[in-house]
Amino acid sequence: MAEAQETVVLKGHIIDSLILAKVLDTILMMGGTFDLRDVSIGKTRQEPSLARILVRASSSQLLTDILRAVQPHGAAVERETDCHYEPAPTDGVFPEDFYATTHLPTQVRLEGRWLDVERIEMDLGIVVDPKAGRVRAAPMGDVRRGELVVCGRSGVRVSPLQRPQEHDVFSFMESQVSAERPHGHIIADVASRMKILRDRSRQGLPDSHVLLAGGPAIIHAGGREALTWLIEAGFIQVLFCGNALAAHDMEADLYGTSLGYGLSAGRAVPHGHEHHLRTINRIRAIGGIATAVERGVIKQGIMAACVRQGVQIVMAGTIRDDGPLPGVITDSIRAQAAMRAAIPGVGLALLVASTLHSVATGNLLPAMVPTVCVDVNPAVPTKLADRGSFQAVGLVMDAASFLRELARILGAVL
Amino acid sequence: MAEAQETVVLKGHIIDSLILAKVLDTILMMGGTFDLRDVSIGKTRQEPSLARILVRASSSQLLTDILRAVQPHGAAVERETDCHYEPAPTDGVFPEDFYATTHLPTQVRLEGRWLDVERIEMDLGIVVDPKAGRVRAAPMGDVRRGELVVCGRSGVRVSPLQRPQEHDVFSFMESQVSAERPHGHIIADVASRMKILRDRSRQGLPDSHVLLAGGPAIIHAGGREALTWLIEAGFIQVLFCGNALAAHDMEADLYGTSLGYGLSAGRAVPHGHEHHLRTINRIRAIGGIATAVERGVIKQGIMAACVRQGVQIVMAGTIRDDGPLPGVITDSIRAQAAMRAAIPGVGLALLVASTLHSVATGNLLPAMVPTVCVDVNPAVPTKLADRGSFQAVGLVMDAASFLRELARILGAVL
Amino acid sequence: MAEAQETVVLKGHIIDSLILAKVLDTILMMGGTFDLRDVSIGKTRQEPSLARILVRASSSQLLTDILRAVQPHGAAVERETDCHYEPAPTDGVFPEDFYATTHLPTQVRLEGRWLDVERIEMDLGIVVDPKAGRVRAAPMGDVRRGELVVCGRSGVRVSPLQRPQEHDVFSFMESQVSAERPHGHIIADVASRMKILRDRSRQGLPDSHVLLAGGPAIIHAGGREALTWLIEAGFIQVLFCGNALAAHDMEADLYGTSLGYGLSAGRAVPHGHEHHLRTINRIRAIGGIATAVERGVIKQGIMAACVRQGVQIVMAGTIRDDGPLPGVITDSIRAQAAMRAAIPGVGLALLVASTLHSVATGNLLPAMVPTVCVDVNPAVPTKLADRGSFQAVGLVMDAASFLRELARILGAVL
Amino acid sequence: MAEAQETVVLKGHIIDSLILAKVLDTILMMGGTFDLRDVSIGKTRQEPSLARILVRASSSQLLTDILRAVQPHGAAVERETDCHYEPAPTDGVFPEDFYATTHLPTQVRLEGRWLDVERIEMDLGIVVDPKAGRVRAAPMGDVRRGELVVCGRSGVRVSPLQRPQEHDVFSFMESQVSAERPHGHIIADVASRMKILRDRSRQGLPDSHVLLAGGPAIIHAGGREALTWLIEAGFIQVLFCGNALAAHDMEADLYGTSLGYGLSAGRAVPHGHEHHLRTINRIRAIGGIATAVERGVIKQGIMAACVRQGVQIVMAGTIRDDGPLPGVITDSIRAQAAMRAAIPGVGLALLVASTLHSVATGNLLPAMVPTVCVDVNPAVPTKLADRGSFQAVGLVMDAASFLRELARILGAVL
Repeated sequence: MAEAQETVVLKGHIIDSLILAKVLDTILMMGGTFDLRDVSIGKTRQEPSLARILVRASSSQLLTDILRAVQPHGAAVERETDCHYEPAPTDGVFPEDFYATTHLPTQVRLEGRWLDVERIEMDLGIVVDPKAGRVRAAPMGDVRRGELVVCGRSGVRVSPLQRPQEHDVFSFMESQVSAERPHGHIIADVASRMKILRDRSRQGLPDSHVLLAGGPAIIHAGGREALTWLIEAGFIQVLFCGNALAAHDMEADLYGTSLGYGLSAGRAVPHGHEHHLRTINRIRAIGGIATAVERGVIKQGIMAACVRQGVQIVMAGTIRDDGPLPGVITDSIRAQAAMRAAIPGVGLALLVASTLHSVATGNLLPAMVPTVCVDVNPAVPTKLADRGSFQAVGLVMDAASFLRELARILGAVL
Repeated sequence: MAEAQETVVLKGHIIDSLILAKVLDTILMMGGTFDLRDVSIGKTRQEPSLARILVRASSSQLLTDILRAVQPHGAAVERETDCHYEPAPTDGVFPEDFYATTHLPTQVRLEGRWLDVERIEMDLGIVVDPKAGRVRAAPMGDVRRGELVVCGRSGVRVSPLQRPQEHDVFSFMESQVSAERPHGHIIADVASRMKILRDRSRQGLPDSHVLLAGGPAIIHAGGREALTWLIEAGFIQVLFCGNALAAHDMEADLYGTSLGYGLSAGRAVPHGHEHHLRTINRIRAIGGIATAVERGVIKQGIMAACVRQGVQIVMAGTIRDDGPLPGVITDSIRAQAAMRAAIPGVGLALLVASTLHSVATGNLLPAMVPTVCVDVNPAVPTKLADRGSFQAVGLVMDAASFLRELARILGAVL
Repeated sequence: MAEAQETVVLKGHIIDSLILAKVLDTILMMGGTFDLRDVSIGKTRQEPSLARILVRASSSQLLTDILRAVQPHGAAVERETDCHYEPAPTDGVFPEDFYATTHLPTQVRLEGRWLDVERIEMDLGIVVDPKAGRVRAAPMGDVRRGELVVCGRSGVRVSPLQRPQEHDVFSFMESQVSAERPHGHIIADVASRMKILRDRSRQGLPDSHVLLAGGPAIIHAGGREALTWLIEAGFIQVLFCGNALAAHDMEADLYGTSLGYGLSAGRAVPHGHEHHLRTINRIRAIGGIATAVERGVIKQGIMAACVRQGVQIVMAGTIRDDGPLPGVITDSIRAQAAMRAAIPGVGLALLVASTLHSVATGNLLPAMVPTVCVDVNPAVPTKLADRGSFQAVGLVMDAASFLRELARILGAVL
Repeated sequence: MAEAQETVVLKGHIIDSLILAKVLDTILMMGGTFDLRDVSIGKTRQEPSLARILVRASSSQLLTDILRAVQPHGAAVERETDCHYEPAPTDGVFPEDFYATTHLPTQVRLEGRWLDVERIEMDLGIVVDPKAGRVRAAPMGDVRRGELVVCGRSGVRVSPLQRPQEHDVFSFMESQVSAERPHGHIIADVASRMKILRDRSRQGLPDSHVLLAGGPAIIHAGGREALTWLIEAGFIQVLFCGNALAAHDMEADLYGTSLGYGLSAGRAVPHGHEHHLRTINRIRAIGGIATAVERGVIKQGIMAACVRQGVQIVMAGTIRDDGPLPGVITDSIRAQAAMRAAIPGVGLALLVASTLHSVATGNLLPAMVPTVCVDVNPAVPTKLADRGSFQAVGLVMDAASFLRELARILGAVL
């Protein structure tokens, strides 16, 4: 088989961001070889670097695979051509050779101009509107027959993330995922961000929302009071959760239990799962959570705080659900769309004690949104922190301890 | 506050099944006291025992709570009265005081006769049809306005599970949840059951189906070949999974990768997530998994084996899904209903490497269905094994090792 | 093979303590059968119960195995005979058929009198001194040639634990091992005990010491300040730890880091392990921890507080150790003996974030000492809580969060 | 405070090994800045690269800290001077400013000549013998008063590890630590290495030994048969373990149980811990493991195979131990020394199901020894894989499944 080769270009802070190293490692790992051509390295931190890399592979198929693999790091094939696009063959189906997005800032070249891809998110396609001169990332299920979808890899440019300016926990390469590292100062850095974002949010500035995606362990483990405080104090603008978090929160208000554990007594009330069901049944009878809060049936807690503070809630259903509560979006594709619609404006994401919500939210977030993932099971923060960005931090600790510490730093008396 | 008291009766193998002990412990734990009246203990293993317990509590509310808590163990209030029922106030809402089910065999007393509750499952209500003389467990969302729903606790009888006859791993009180216990013989016991059930299934005998509910880690960790073999050899009749398992399985067939990990090379193919998306897109273009198998696009693997063997598949959607594949039920309530409909006939359930599917399936299974839960994270089998039945066994090991060992015992050459 | 049988007697609160149930289950599980004879059940909580059980087995070997298995629950063979003893054949070796202890209160019958076994602990032998009329549990390695060691099972009586009087978390059968249960009130119960024990300790009352056995994750995760406070406030009397905890604590004092993590800055100081080594080297140069504290080299922290408060420290060495620090007992058998010597007087044991120290300490504790095991990895508390006693409670959370919460409840301002 | 600066030089495959990137990241992370001077990058994979970096810091203390932090990556201060050394002030104590080693290949400059440091290992000091012209790494406890110990950082050169030549799992930057990755091919790569090493070992070639450090879970989980096979087939030359592994292995031979779990029956034999104690007592009476094997008391299993194959065994004691068995080194410093003495010659290390032995062994291994760490708890392989070398691979799976798969690939019929 004939050897194939192609020259790719890398620009930016490619040395201290590990980008050049990762590109070269990827080429070798996949069985290719390279020559480094014309490397010019910025002499100071401010000056960007540039590297021109000749990639060689034993077949053109392997070359294609390698180019696809290095592109997410920003390695663009040198020839600048327009992107290629084809119409979607039918509703909900991309053309065969569609370009699949990363979560990094992306541009496509259309009639000689590089256009930013709007609403970037990983694992979508790119729909172009040549007349309007606009391009947007779109989920497979959303594409309509005849919409023009970018295919192949030419004319697509991915920008590696720059190291953030702030000198806090989000600005370092190493993701912090260990039960054996000091949590205190990571939480303090998160709290600092949240103070700044609350100020920005109150001034109506962009990207100032704090999103919390959480699971019911927040309630079980004793974090309800702290999360309620954070919402009431204006630190959270968006809540992603499921039926269980909402139901346990309101169960705690109505019965003082969470899945049968008496929260004030700390004792299991056997078969207390009944309270959970009765809570859901009661809210269904009332017709909605907001109504239940307005009528004074639900007096306090996370849901009550969200309703009063105007926090945007997306509740997504799962096959584990009892009920579910009114307001739970039982269709997963519709729920995903609702989550997606709530992402723009988010400047910090806290993913707490829920594998499902953490991973689903992580998939929707652009790479530049700082993200903290908290779970007592190290597998979840490891999975999230492995997103290839500076800005994902993992904490191995229980949800309640995290939220209580965070709220205390921000001024709560708990 | 006036002290309240009530006499409850326990019957059956209440001594060696721990039932009496648990009832007494529950009474004390909740703050009540008891006197044991007329305990007659079966002198041999075959003879049932009987205990009459006077329960005392400091208030009638506490007494009610205690009676509710001991009822799942089969402790019935002595006075035999008919059950009380009320009409559902509106669609999807139970009457305020509805009786919430356990997963144990349950009867209700209607006009002096004890009737078995059909389709028992935990955390449902009981709908009675006095004219037809039938009673069934029903999910909250399914009840229609005016249907008659059992309320309160009188006239409801729960039977404690008897220790099974077989002398295998399912017949002991202690659930095996530890990474430090020998797995070999547990898996051998499971294999024996599966051989017997396959024979029974081929003869069309009842309760002979084997259900496997599994997550995508089955593919990632290298269990695809073994599960395919088990299906092809006729050992599995029902498969519960999500979009990811099916997509990874077919990705492995089309591209030889799973989420970008080359299954034959054992190497990460960077950004191989593309294969995952292309697989889903391709099946969407074809229109369905069965069609893809029939047309020879998908040649082998789990999905191909299921299609060829007529295995019943329920694929439930989540907010993590890409695509999803045609056939995935994106609405969680509809997916739950489809799972529920597939449960009757199941004589053994294998819950493998999926917290979501394991817990959701566990919720739907009656207590008498032997259940094995396998996960490398001990939290999942612990949660499942904690179902209060003899028949739930947890194994802390990776999915691939479990399936490969199981298949080897059953005759596969892997 | 001839069937064998024997009658055993169970006395005490055998119904509500699950003891009868466990004995019967054990008999069946091991392949024996039983008849229940003369069961008289206490009609009230105060009155003890009594059961006489005829155990049958297919061989006398199996019968022996079963009797050995049920004895730890207090099931004594009916014939009351003196215990049988034989001389140890050589130093450090028990006679072939030595009786192996449980951690439950145990008596042996010597010349018609039942004598309490002193210093009971699991997995030891029992040495009798017929002249002095005394019996004590002894580790295998401690026995001297010719000492008289109890053999066989007759004349040995094990008392099942009674449910404790207090109505707190330690008084229930179910051990609390889950990340999804509310921690707050368990910690509050522990704090209450610690207050009472501090008062008792100040009055010189017996069994009033609090033992903390902990690992270095206490420092890494940010619990140093809280543990220091607990010691300074007089809540801890005995500390079991290893070289690492002590070294990290003093490293934090000397350098402000723990294994290279800047505790105040929350940043990794690369290769900060050097500080760890320099700390150990410095203390070795000074000659001892107490000297370092007295000279003002070590100013504050856990070790300084222990030295000032007169807390008894046992530091045990492992093959992971650097150095080690002066005072570390590098011989594991000598370290075990030092730990054993510190156990009498302990009324509460906190086992925090160390598998090795938690399990080793758990092995040394009599069953009646209330024990809390805290670890972010559920395997450790599960192992400990599985000791077959009411009094072991497991908490799945990180060490720092536990200690901080505990200290706050007890009055610390952190 | 005056700004300080220093020029450091990096040489080798510093681009594709991430080394340059890590050095620059470290400088920035610690608060320094840099200018890149004279970067010459090898144009092909074979050609080494060179970078001269001007490091600036706000104080000379910070500069010192930064230089210390980047040195483990091979960044040497440009001025070539001899190393500085001072006499140890007393036995077991290094001079105050001693140089602490990494596990990377290290040289020191003595009278103008660069000498290799013998027996390199992390976290030791370096003892020089100027007369003999030799330098060796030495544990703190081993140094004798007056021995000359390298101090400061000048004249010390650390070589970054080169990417290995083989194209197997050990040659990539990313450490494989996940339960969700395919294990099959990682194990196959390990098996290939083991075949090659057995051949080399039979020819008496250097660095051909395979070391297995393992915990008792190997026995509990059912891996005894497989490990025995591997030893008998000549694939293992060195075994590090504790009292428990050896005792459980011989218990399985004598009683067919492991900690009371009947290995052939798969059932718990209650209080089977007795067998464990009796096994230890019996071997103590006999006087040693080798004697027990020779006399035919111990017939088969891991210990028997080791004795027959002449495998070198180091058994280290801990405070958890019963007994212990004859041959267990109860002093942790002596045990560490015995392990250290067995390391030279090791060409592959398998660390299986033991946090203590895995971490302790990991500390002793030079960076160039390929290492596989297997544990069902992801924390352990994560800790080991985090050693900053290409050659550490983590597998999240149970010990038995790993060993059985490995043995099958190597030809065992299990």
